[in-house]
Amino acid sequence: MQQQVTLSIEQAQALGLKVLLGNGFNHEHATAITRSVVSAQRDECHSHGLYRLIGCVETARLGGIDGNARPEVVDHAPSIVKVKANRGSSLSAFERGKPLLVEKANTTGIAVLAITESFHFSALWQEVEALSGEGLVALAMTPTHPFVAPAGGTKALLGTNPFAFSWPRPGKAPYTFDFATSVIARGEIELHRRAGEAIPEGWALDAQGNPTTDPDTALKGAMLAFGGHKGSALSTMIELLAGPLIGDVLGHETAAAAEGGKKRPYHGEFIVAISPRAFLGEAADEHLAHAETLFEEIAGQGARLPSQRRFAARQRSLADGVKIPRQLHEELKALIPSSRR
Amino acid sequence: MQQQVTLSIEQAQALGLKVLLGNGFNHEHATAITRSVVSAQRDECHSHGLYRLIGCVETARLGGIDGNARPEVVDHAPSIVKVKANRGSSLSAFERGKPLLVEKANTTGIAVLAITESFHFSALWQEVEALSGEGLVALAMTPTHPFVAPAGGTKALLGTNPFAFSWPRPGKAPYTFDFATSVIARGEIELHRRAGEAIPEGWALDAQGNPTTDPDTALKGAMLAFGGHKGSALSTMIELLAGPLIGDVLGHETAAAAEGGKKRPYHGEFIVAISPRAFLGEAADEHLAHAETLFEEIAGQGARLPSQRRFAARQRSLADGVKIPRQLHEELKALIPSSRR
Repeated sequence: MQQQVTLSIEQAQALGLKVLLGNGFNHEHATAITRSVVSAQRDECHSHGLYRLIGCVETARLGGIDGNARPEVVDHAPSIVKVKANRGSSLSAFERGKPLLVEKANTTGIAVLAITESFHFSALWQEVEALSGEGLVALAMTPTHPFVAPAGGTKALLGTNPFAFSWPRPGKAPYTFDFATSVIARGEIELHRRAGEAIPEGWALDAQGNPTTDPDTALKGAMLAFGGHKGSALSTMIELLAGPLIGDVLGHETAAAAEGGKKRPYHGEFIVAISPRAFLGEAADEHLAHAETLFEEIAGQGARLPSQRRFAARQRSLADGVKIPRQLHEELKALIPSSRR
Repeated sequence: MQQQVTLSIEQAQALGLKVLLGNGFNHEHATAITRSVVSAQRDECHSHGLYRLIGCVETARLGGIDGNARPEVVDHAPSIVKVKANRGSSLSAFERGKPLLVEKANTTGIAVLAITESFHFSALWQEVEALSGEGLVALAMTPTHPFVAPAGGTKALLGTNPFAFSWPRPGKAPYTFDFATSVIARGEIELHRRAGEAIPEGWALDAQGNPTTDPDTALKGAMLAFGGHKGSALSTMIELLAGPLIGDVLGHETAAAAEGGKKRPYHGEFIVAISPRAFLGEAADEHLAHAETLFEEIAGQGARLPSQRRFAARQRSLADGVKIPRQLHEELKALIPSSRR
């Protein structure tokens, strides 16, 4: 078994900040990105955890993400906040735009935060949970690189386009889900390839658009959307809302858009915040309590609410710290310039 | 083959109005419901077509839907329109609320129409297309009776909870989809039962929560959500937004809520309208044209955009009229009091 290193949350944060500040990211960017990767690590979402710092630094070195970009917040309309990330991270754009989004949602009932021209490499649950933490209902969606064939099609066109939702549960962890609209994460196919195992039918097509169970062939072909034509339709909706509606690119254009950054994910993000209090006034508490009956019915059948494994990991990590492979720890430390070690 | 009767759109409308006006529906209700069933018939969505008038009249006779209800429109917040249907049809509530919804979306960027205390028996594509016809992007969702088990669960709890989306395509029929979050429509299981055929695996569970391929057992058990835990999560989101958020019931409460109406679908509906022009100003045309490249790429692969069959039927019906079984035509005529024939 690989050797592990345990870090307290504070140590993980200090490590993230040192890596980013030492590689040309300004304080705002370093703080926002560190917060994201540490919270993913805390929830044991390893692929979005501290590991992600390596790609982040590489993207900056290649002239992709600009760690000194200043996100521009525009109070565009009563229910629209726009943040132009200016080739910076979507995370600092979100943090800059969030206060105005919260204010607008509470005032008008529902509001959108439209982030454009951003580098995006984080999990969406973080942003929807930042909003449900403010008592709001939140949705988020974003395109990604084109790995998925539309239902009935033969070629990769749509992104794996994730969709996230969070509902505030007073006194409890929120009801949150965050899923890719591909049938499976691309990394799962990669894992099967490494293990020399066939992938199940229904995951992917070969380059000619025929079903395949060979992971190598699948990675050169196209993945499939979850749930057939329904998932494909949902994925298309995500491309439209987080693309043309906010004046940004479609999934199949994300690669070309990121010329300087070796095809890094450069695109928009569409976030919606809804205020139960604006809808219901003083009755909000009663109806939020009513929503709990649904969660109780689900759990009462022995079905698991989404994100429960992540919330359990969170509790463990807050108590015991986070564990990362020793090799990753060494790689991250090596990214810190000697002057900052 | 069953004998068919061909009606012009005008004849179908006249028939619908006579049936409804002759059975205690006021002019507003009769017009809204007729518009809905005729447009469904025109698009060859038979189950939501003229056939639906029979259930509608029956529901009214049982004291379910109140065909004289006056929907109350409340200008609740800058981006919220509420319409209390007062036991009337969701369709007249929608028509009453729509002008203010459109105005709000164009002013603030995004707005919600929350319909409560309504009887709902129409397809959601009609409402999202009424909005995309105004140049808006629209989403709609609603709970239904509890036929679907949550992923990992054993018992029917969630509705078949449909989700619809429409995106305006200048000069063309919109990009629209409208799907149930169950893996299949309940009617499909019914059709298998009548034909004495097994249903595919993955559609349903028996009363003990075990997988079944027997349609009879499935109808007494629970249907499954499309796309496993992802579709189940989406369905749960729909229950929350179209239920507690707007102060109305959850799917498993719809039956009880409709006491007077023999378990007819009495619940809320959540409709979102988004204005591309509010987001993009004069650049809206350019970005809507950009969205067309996605549709061209999808169609260029030989994949079909959703709703194409429906739009083709629409063209046929507008040219040649709609066809319904002679027996249905007779049943509908029999519902008209002799004074109005």
